[in-house]
Amino acid sequence: MLKYLGKHLILELWGCDPKALDDEKGIEKMLVDCVEACGATLICVRTHKFSPQGATGVAVLAESHIAIHTYPEYGYAALDVFTCGEHTDPYKALEVIRDFLKPKSIQIIDLKRGLMENGTFELK
Amino acid sequence: MLKYLGKHLILELWGCDPKALDDEKGIEKMLVDCVEACGATLICVRTHKFSPQGATGVAVLAESHIAIHTYPEYGYAALDVFTCGEHTDPYKALEVIRDFLKPKSIQIIDLKRGLMENGTFELK
Repeated sequence: MLKYLGKHLILELWGCDPKALDDEKGIEKMLVDCVEACGATLICVRTHKFSPQGATGVAVLAESHIAIHTYPEYGYAALDVFTCGEHTDPYKALEVIRDFLKPKSIQIIDLKRGLMENGTFELK
Repeated sequence: MLKYLGKHLILELWGCDPKALDDEKGIEKMLVDCVEACGATLICVRTHKFSPQGATGVAVLAESHIAIHTYPEYGYAALDVFTCGEHTDPYKALEVIRDFLKPKSIQIIDLKRGLMENGTFELK
C-alpha cells in the first residue's frame, strides 16, 4: 500500500495577463481565494512587489504552502500549490488561478510528497 | 538556445533527526543560513509549530522562496529550494540542510522553471 503526506502541484503558466501578474493586491487576494478553494487553513500571506515589475506571494498554510513568482515581461508565472491532509484538494485552486491570471497555457506537474510503502519508510 | 528563469530543487529528506524536525527556532536559523549559502536575499521568514509535533517554515526571497514542512513522527521533511537569477545556486543549501537535519537519505528532483526556447515562449 502506498501512502503519501503531501500533494504538490507545480504549475507553469504562460500567456498570462501582464496587468494581473504585476498586481500585488490582486495576487494576495488570489492566494487567499486559492487557500479557501483548496479547503486549507491560512496561517499568513506575504507579498512583495519588485521594481520595475514582477511580484512574489507566499501563503503559509496549516497544510504546507502556496507560492507564486511572476514575470510580466514574459507573461509567465511559476505557481506551487502544496497541500497535505485528506481534506484538501490543490486542484481546486486551478479555477481561481485561471480566473485571475487568464493564462493561455498551463503545464501541471503533479508530485506526491512523502511517498511511503505500507505507511513506513525503510532505507533499502 | 534554452533559457530558464528559476532553479527549483524538490528535496525529499528521510531518516532526519526528529528533534531537529520539531525545533522551530533551529528551522528558522537553517532557512536563513540556506538563503545566505545560496547567495539570495531574504525578504522575510515565517515559521509555525504544530501541536503535538511538526513545523513549517517559509523564507520569502527576492529570488523566489525556500520552504520546509516537517513530520518528526516519520523522520521526514519536504523541502523546496527555489531561486532565480544567475547569482544564486540552490545546491549550496544542501550542506546547511544536511548539517542541521542529518537525513539518512535525500532524494533530489531538479526542475527548471520558466523554461523557454530562444529566450521566448511561443504557444505551439
